[in-house]
Amino acid sequence: MSSRVPPPFPADTSLELSPAEMERLARLALDRIVAHVDSLPAQRAADTEGAAELSRALIEREPPEAGVPAEELLDLLFDRAIPKSFNTASPGYLAYIPGGGLFQSAVADLVAAATNRYVGVFAAAPLLVQLETNVVRWFTRLAGLPETAGGFLSSGGSLANFSAIVAARRERLPEDFLSGVLYVSDQTHHCVAKAAVLAGFPARNVREIASDGAFRLRLDLLERAVAEDRENGLSPFLVVGSAGTTNTGAVDDLGALAAFCRRAGLWFHVDAAYGGFFLLTERGRRAMAGIEKADSIVLDPHKGLFLPYGTGCLLVRDAAILRRAHAVDAEYLPGMQSDPDLVDFCEISPELSRDNRGLAVWLPLKLHGLGPFRRNLDEKLDLACWAAREIALLPGFEVVAEPQLSLLAFRFAPEDVSGPALEALNRRLLAAVNARGRVHLTATTAKGAFVLRICVLSFRTHFDRMQAALEDIATAARAAAAG
Amino acid sequence: MSSRVPPPFPADTSLELSPAEMERLARLALDRIVAHVDSLPAQRAADTEGAAELSRALIEREPPEAGVPAEELLDLLFDRAIPKSFNTASPGYLAYIPGGGLFQSAVADLVAAATNRYVGVFAAAPLLVQLETNVVRWFTRLAGLPETAGGFLSSGGSLANFSAIVAARRERLPEDFLSGVLYVSDQTHHCVAKAAVLAGFPARNVREIASDGAFRLRLDLLERAVAEDRENGLSPFLVVGSAGTTNTGAVDDLGALAAFCRRAGLWFHVDAAYGGFFLLTERGRRAMAGIEKADSIVLDPHKGLFLPYGTGCLLVRDAAILRRAHAVDAEYLPGMQSDPDLVDFCEISPELSRDNRGLAVWLPLKLHGLGPFRRNLDEKLDLACWAAREIALLPGFEVVAEPQLSLLAFRFAPEDVSGPALEALNRRLLAAVNARGRVHLTATTAKGAFVLRICVLSFRTHFDRMQAALEDIATAARAAAAG
Repeated sequence: MSSRVPPPFPADTSLELSPAEMERLARLALDRIVAHVDSLPAQRAADTEGAAELSRALIEREPPEAGVPAEELLDLLFDRAIPKSFNTASPGYLAYIPGGGLFQSAVADLVAAATNRYVGVFAAAPLLVQLETNVVRWFTRLAGLPETAGGFLSSGGSLANFSAIVAARRERLPEDFLSGVLYVSDQTHHCVAKAAVLAGFPARNVREIASDGAFRLRLDLLERAVAEDRENGLSPFLVVGSAGTTNTGAVDDLGALAAFCRRAGLWFHVDAAYGGFFLLTERGRRAMAGIEKADSIVLDPHKGLFLPYGTGCLLVRDAAILRRAHAVDAEYLPGMQSDPDLVDFCEISPELSRDNRGLAVWLPLKLHGLGPFRRNLDEKLDLACWAAREIALLPGFEVVAEPQLSLLAFRFAPEDVSGPALEALNRRLLAAVNARGRVHLTATTAKGAFVLRICVLSFRTHFDRMQAALEDIATAARAAAAG
Repeated sequence: MSSRVPPPFPADTSLELSPAEMERLARLALDRIVAHVDSLPAQRAADTEGAAELSRALIEREPPEAGVPAEELLDLLFDRAIPKSFNTASPGYLAYIPGGGLFQSAVADLVAAATNRYVGVFAAAPLLVQLETNVVRWFTRLAGLPETAGGFLSSGGSLANFSAIVAARRERLPEDFLSGVLYVSDQTHHCVAKAAVLAGFPARNVREIASDGAFRLRLDLLERAVAEDRENGLSPFLVVGSAGTTNTGAVDDLGALAAFCRRAGLWFHVDAAYGGFFLLTERGRRAMAGIEKADSIVLDPHKGLFLPYGTGCLLVRDAAILRRAHAVDAEYLPGMQSDPDLVDFCEISPELSRDNRGLAVWLPLKLHGLGPFRRNLDEKLDLACWAAREIALLPGFEVVAEPQLSLLAFRFAPEDVSGPALEALNRRLLAAVNARGRVHLTATTAKGAFVLRICVLSFRTHFDRMQAALEDIATAARAAAAG
């Protein structure tokens, strides 16, 4: 390639902001952000009316040639795009698994992105990598894993579960692994089966074991399935326990599963994406006893640590396994670093270049210490218990899934209603609660029944909002029964 | 679980910042960020002296119980952790593939994280999802893909390449895919082989084809390898072309590879993580002609669009393939949305919960339009050409890899030096250039020779810095030859 332009070449510096320009842009954004976050309690818990049509007005098929003033773009975001959504940051958002969105963590993201250092390789930013390594080590302590444990931060639970399956596959199965069988319960999150398929398994190799009356994986059926698969020449290798299912919040009997896996020579993985950080509480530790015997654990700091979306975590009992799992050659390759305290994340995870996720976890934990997180999580357990008790007292209501952590499922089941009419009644109830806008709930199917869910996990959700939820449920029930 | 605490339960609101507290934390961080970014030109291009030891002082094995003031944490970050690093944000960083770190994009990350909406499912935030869908569509236009094309944003090139391999595997191979063979060149990025292994292929199924004198995949050898593998009962299914290798910046003959793949019935994937955004320039389009015939393309906005780390992109020629690739059941499942303009990213990508990456791309592109990006990339092409010409004029120097885009490789090869002494000489040269601190270069091996690399890709790198690079190389050569 030849260049006919004589030096010095025309330099475009318009992407490089002066201090005043940086201040101005940040100021504009911050004004909107602070006002938005401050008004979250007054905002609807969800507002997507007409949103699909409004989104259509935003379609732009051609990339922009001309620039647009920042004010206009921020207006679009804060007046139109952000409000028309499930308000996952709202204290009233009790749907799916609520999002958090600690401002402290968002500031850490700003620092990480604006300074843009590379943390995939230890040598490139040793101190920043150490801060992320610390965070992972704290999580291994929290989970009760031994000194040999290690792990990495992912973008969320899906990819962390994926890496757990790849690690188990490479550690326990031959290269030709298509006879390998994974065991999940009928309550396990869908992302596990998806991860198995991405990792190369046919969907039929994911064996779904029925759960018991408390939505826990049935060990007796698991044992039978493993034995049968072995008799049929298949290769059972991995059992997935859930520490808080997304569906009804069930925590499997992790101790019993761990013991069985040890006896049967199976890798024991725990998907604790939703429930894991309740290990900070005494009740959580009781509910999840046995998690410390897992071979691998997935946690989602963007759930139980209230972080903004974008931070999951995979922990493994033996850190060396992650290195072997991500090596291209079958034989073990010595790492870039032989010191176990110095971690090259690109060698133990699927990513090479990626965002510096460590700061978003590190900054809020260092700013506050664990106390506020522990107290917040304890409060969520209290709130879920309180809601379950109050709902059970409402005439005609039944709690279908008691809170094992901070999630419960229930339905309005007056004596004279059944079948499709019962589902329709509960759909009307749900619609009425959500139309009120103070809280947002979702429904699911539990043991064949259409049920409503309440999941309490936002650091912004307190007693007043749960009272509002109960009021709105009671009011909606009266209206739904009448109508 | 029963709760014995009477309502209202103790609420810990210490994680919820008041507007004044948000302002204060953001102010503290912004002061440090603006000063840091403003002083980037004066900072060393890399400074990791003693960093491993300093990192050791930061090891904390136990999670923090007590909080630490924000000032102290920001001091740790800005005075110690961030400076001790490869300064990937510096205008003098010409190593590996330089990072950018547009402040505009960091502000978008702040908005996304602080407002914390969920963009994995269209219905959850339709307008925000639309903005991300627009960004992906712009990229398909840039790549010249047809209307059927689609894609998603990933955390970086590694996972985007992984998803391309999974898509090709599920589209072109049977469930028992272990006879499937992928073809790469000896210059293809290592992450492709790693992705293949994660996707379930034995490492030996990744066939490495030799490159020619310009480091381009040799089509004649590829044709022969594919024919031989077919004769041996294997199943060739995927060829990976590179649009800018990380090693020497080579762009494969994409048109010829595309034509061969079509004839041979192979999936044609292009890893354009480094080079892709040069498609904004006329010279880039010439160099990458044929990319529009690819079945899938990986781009890294955190490279060629100067974004902070954390945004890659996979484009596929036929968006429906991505949906099939991520479905758990083999049969095609109708999507949540039947309208092709309404995309559920969780259905066409491996992630469910993840950060809102779209804003970080959308905001800078909308603020500035494409012009400044195009002009910046043109300037980088000019700078690389200029550097190659100037280096060729230095006594005893030879350019080993001419810039096909903005990356070149060269060495100091005085007539009387050869063998190990030649490598030692170039290692001394490299160390001397980097010790000066105005620029940071790295070395690699090209055709068996130890060579130095210059990659120009930061929006902050202009002619003055390239002049400094040339001065430092010339000075270091004189010293190295003398010493």
